[in-house]
Amino acid sequence: MAGLRVRSALLTGANRGIGLGLVKHFLQLPNPPERIFAACRDPKGERAQELQSLASKHPRNGALTSCCVDSVDVTDPASIQAAAARVTEHLKGSGLNLLINNAGIVKWNSLDTTTREEMSEVYATNTIGPLLVSQAFLPLLKKAAQGSPSSELSCSRAAIINISSIGGSIASESSWDMIQIVSYRCSKAALNMLTKCQSLGYRQHGILCAALHPGWVQTDMGSPPLTVDMSVQMMLEVFSKLSEKDSGTLLDWEGKVIPW
Amino acid sequence: MAGLRVRSALLTGANRGIGLGLVKHFLQLPNPPERIFAACRDPKGERAQELQSLASKHPRNGALTSCCVDSVDVTDPASIQAAAARVTEHLKGSGLNLLINNAGIVKWNSLDTTTREEMSEVYATNTIGPLLVSQAFLPLLKKAAQGSPSSELSCSRAAIINISSIGGSIASESSWDMIQIVSYRCSKAALNMLTKCQSLGYRQHGILCAALHPGWVQTDMGSPPLTVDMSVQMMLEVFSKLSEKDSGTLLDWEGKVIPW
Ligand SMILES: NC(=O)c1ccc[n+]([C@@H]2O[C@H](COP(=O)([O-])OP(=O)(O)OC[C@H]3O[C@@H](n4cnc5c(N)ncnc54)[C@H](OP(=O)(O)O)[C@@H]3O)[C@@H](O)[C@H]2O)c1
Ligand SMILES: NC(=O)c1ccc[n+]([C@@H]2O[C@H](COP(=O)([O-])OP(=O)(O)OC[C@H]3O[C@@H](n4cnc5c(N)ncnc54)[C@H](OP(=O)(O)O)[C@@H]3O)[C@@H](O)[C@H]2O)c1
Repeated sequence: MAGLRVRSALLTGANRGIGLGLVKHFLQLPNPPERIFAACRDPKGERAQELQSLASKHPRNGALTSCCVDSVDVTDPASIQAAAARVTEHLKGSGLNLLINNAGIVKWNSLDTTTREEMSEVYATNTIGPLLVSQAFLPLLKKAAQGSPSSELSCSRAAIINISSIGGSIASESSWDMIQIVSYRCSKAALNMLTKCQSLGYRQHGILCAALHPGWVQTDMGSPPLTVDMSVQMMLEVFSKLSEKDSGTLLDWEGKVIPW
Repeated sequence: MAGLRVRSALLTGANRGIGLGLVKHFLQLPNPPERIFAACRDPKGERAQELQSLASKHPRNGALTSCCVDSVDVTDPASIQAAAARVTEHLKGSGLNLLINNAGIVKWNSLDTTTREEMSEVYATNTIGPLLVSQAFLPLLKKAAQGSPSSELSCSRAAIINISSIGGSIASESSWDMIQIVSYRCSKAALNMLTKCQSLGYRQHGILCAALHPGWVQTDMGSPPLTVDMSVQMMLEVFSKLSEKDSGTLLDWEGKVIPW
């Protein structure tokens, strides 16, 4: 993990599951980020208590690392814009290195019973959310890329990581038996497409864009074999190694390419 | 085309562009379908005049082939349900062989300027629409499959064809320069996923499911090299040859597989 030197990172859905795990592991890095923006949709709510208590140990003007809990509902453009303005102010002229679009939902329903409302809701969170959040933080990501001493693409310079799923791989039939949930699969296939579009569009700005499947992880959404700690530790290892060739791909938690 | 013996077919977006072209060519087949249901969202409107005049030459109780104009807005579940009820009645106990989800829209906007509203609207038409229409006509498709003398998958027996686009192929970077329209690309990638899910879910019912890229076609939406006649003629040729191995794939107008 020596290779990962991110000065600032922002994550959505940071209050539980994989998002919370990522925050914890970032704080434990030998070179932790100076600023971690842990965004969740209800920072004052019960589901954010563990995150809040973690953040209280790394206060806003802390010496080494600060962890700020911020309010972002990825389906609400106004909340995204407001957070981008606050983060911009907080960063005092410097850029944002790493944006992790992690927030996501699932609706357990089959091909025959999925409704229009479910399809829209899942797409709004899992696909449109990452688009809107990326648009809002793009100026800060560009700034980080421009200010970087390196001209190579990397997570340490500037990157958008979209937490996707092997369930969004049209080619991977293996996951069909496990998740026949069409609304989720369609939203993640579309997220993979968004990632590809972002990689093609933002290459010129020095921003790496990749989609990551965290594995099957024991959270409110997922189930074993992986624990959050195992998945997150491996993913940070993957982050540290991402380069030009990985931009515009879908990788798993071990860094293996998953076909579209 | 001798191989294509479809007794009944339903198309969405049948009033202009590729949809209207498909209706015309179906009517000109050596073995035309007995019943063509040409669905469009405004059958009485100006944009349906050409379709209406075509249909008037093939009246509802016509001897060989009837072409019924029906009203379907693919974003309106009630209109889809009502059409399914009418078609069921009209078919008097027999099934529907071929459903072509053709209706589609595009919004010309880039990665940076696409809005939440555009993303939702395009997804509602291009992805959710085909899901809802397929759900509503599934009982009739199953009936056609059950009633068929053949046990092989084919368009003559029972099939869902989703008109997709190479723009929905995440792997095909070649189309990036032509269509940087993220809302459209995401919706068609999701439609490709839907097609794959349908192929896996409906195989057991004897229904073939495939996605088709019609080529770049000169319509209100698209542009040359292909004319509607050229594209549609080739696609009908492809329909006539589709079999088991093609179910769950994305093919172009010449029948070549496009990677996801
Ligand atoms: N777990 C797995 O096996 C697995 C496998 C493949 C992919 N993934 C992906 O990994 C990501 C994280 O999943 P997880 O397992 O950690 O799920 P989780 O435990 O259910 O957590 C989901 C997180 O997303 C947040 N969220 C949902 N809707 C939101 C919105 N509109 N705005 C902001 N935040 C929102 C939730 O916040 P609230 O507390 O406010 O609801 C929560 O923090 C997701 O994108 C998921 O699709 C997970
Ligand atoms: N042309 C190309 O180069 C090209 C390339 C790749 C893929 N495609 C795909 O081919 C299909 C047909 O495209 P086209 O070129 O024929 O486009 P087009 O000329 O613009 O026609 C679109 C058709 O879809 C209908 N439609 C739109 N929204 C609808 C809704 N909510 N409910 C019902 N019908 C609706 C339109 O009806 P109204 O008249 O009422 O608007 C029209 O009949 C689309 O799925 C498109 O994505 C086209």
